Amino acid sequence: MPLPLGFTGARIDRADRLRTDAEAFAAATQDPRATCLAMDGIDPVPGERGGLIWEPLDPADDRALLLLGIDDAGAPRFVRAPAPGARIDARSRTVMRLIPLLSPEEAALYGGARSLVDWHARHGFCAVCAAPTAIFRGGWGRKCGNCGSEHFPRVDPVVIMLAEYQDRVLVGRQPGFPPGFFSALAGFVEPGESLEEAVARELFEEAGIQVSDVVYVASQPWPFPSSLMIGCRAVAHDTALTIDTTELEAAMWVERAEVRAALAGEMGASFMAPPPLAIARYLLEDWAG
Amino acid sequence: MPLPLGFTGARIDRADRLRTDAEAFAAATQDPRATCLAMDGIDPVPGERGGLIWEPLDPADDRALLLLGIDDAGAPRFVRAPAPGARIDARSRTVMRLIPLLSPEEAALYGGARSLVDWHARHGFCAVCAAPTAIFRGGWGRKCGNCGSEHFPRVDPVVIMLAEYQDRVLVGRQPGFPPGFFSALAGFVEPGESLEEAVARELFEEAGIQVSDVVYVASQPWPFPSSLMIGCRAVAHDTALTIDTTELEAAMWVERAEVRAALAGEMGASFMAPPPLAIARYLLEDWAG
Repeated sequence: MPLPLGFTGARIDRADRLRTDAEAFAAATQDPRATCLAMDGIDPVPGERGGLIWEPLDPADDRALLLLGIDDAGAPRFVRAPAPGARIDARSRTVMRLIPLLSPEEAALYGGARSLVDWHARHGFCAVCAAPTAIFRGGWGRKCGNCGSEHFPRVDPVVIMLAEYQDRVLVGRQPGFPPGFFSALAGFVEPGESLEEAVARELFEEAGIQVSDVVYVASQPWPFPSSLMIGCRAVAHDTALTIDTTELEAAMWVERAEVRAALAGEMGASFMAPPPLAIARYLLEDWAG
Repeated sequence: MPLPLGFTGARIDRADRLRTDAEAFAAATQDPRATCLAMDGIDPVPGERGGLIWEPLDPADDRALLLLGIDDAGAPRFVRAPAPGARIDARSRTVMRLIPLLSPEEAALYGGARSLVDWHARHGFCAVCAAPTAIFRGGWGRKCGNCGSEHFPRVDPVVIMLAEYQDRVLVGRQPGFPPGFFSALAGFVEPGESLEEAVARELFEEAGIQVSDVVYVASQPWPFPSSLMIGCRAVAHDTALTIDTTELEAAMWVERAEVRAALAGEMGASFMAPPPLAIARYLLEDWAG
């Protein structure tokens, strides 16, 4: 069985009912058990043992409270919106060093909070009319003070897939990957296509292969900044590759034994497999059996 | 077998390679075979027999050309961006009368074009800094002239699902539905959750039921304005319902025979089924067998 998927399993009730009930929301902010996630920009502030830090609400902090939800013990959990004009360094790699120190539940909760805070930091103005927007719905939207347009956090669906031909699957590497590292091919779903059509289009664009029989395998939120990774498999019609070198540096068909060696981190493996947090690893584990 | 899914099956090569190659894009606009989709705002302009109208490119029209792709015959197909400040009536119901007159391929191509044009109409300004944005990437993005932020068309993933309990499935109706009409429950996927988690959360929020064993069934783009409908099934732990009356007016468990009667449009059916274009109908057909 593959490992559980990274960034899933947040044990929290998102409490949608509190978002639109101003009185209930205010009561949650006054709850003595309420806590706020400590963040450094959009990175987690690590506790002494590496976990997340949850602090009592500081009444002197005037940044808006965004409601993450109600925890198992009934306590409200919040995160602060960024201060207006705050600079967010979304390209910092610090986070990748900190996330492995979190429990799966913490990583999932942090991932959702990160996507939300990052979205607020990049949506202070209305894309329709350029006027400033203000937070509403308990932190899960922004409303324009001028034209009234409502804006909601983005979730960008991405298909990530293994093309299969007889007993081999296709893996590829982008120019920026660490040496030897190969992963599943992936791309954003566009308006006007189904998941299955997006899988076929991306495999043709990036590797020049035709596929059919697309099947869904699993999904995962990916908070860099707010993707929804949708893992699939597809059957390739042949193995001849035409690589789009603007997207991929290389791609290759690998056998089951090679995938198993890569997943096991063997010295002689023909490639380095994706890390445990990534759904690409899950797809390879699921296929390698 | 269920019908093919509405808004899928556009027979077009989206030609991503032309979007980032200014010279190749310019050449496509000069191609004598190039045509542009006739639109009335974001509605289709129906041809004499109800199909779409494709016009030669009018050099006097100064609205930007957005590249839909290259058709089977090798001809470029475009649609025009809305004029700056143009008013788009996204709530007009005219489109629902016109779409059934289109072939499935035409509906799919129109759906993608509609989502794209509508997105441009609502994204003239940068959400980061409020400056005007300009079209780039052949119509598949906008770039801020001030801060350089790049913005891409939204695709909003929505889970739509049938909860199943023994030989019954759950259907519900929103307050605005036509009388007697029931459909699958649905809701937007939020940052920080997988598809499976979104299905479980929505069914609990809207109907108060706990589910497990979520399985993916099918997907469909839904251009009102730019949803990606992801159809699933899930197994309910029991049948007691607690309806969120802000979302649903009613919900009920229906048996296979009732679903078949509804799909067949029988006089005595206990509810009216969703129309052929909707993935909710596909889910019901798939389940009813």
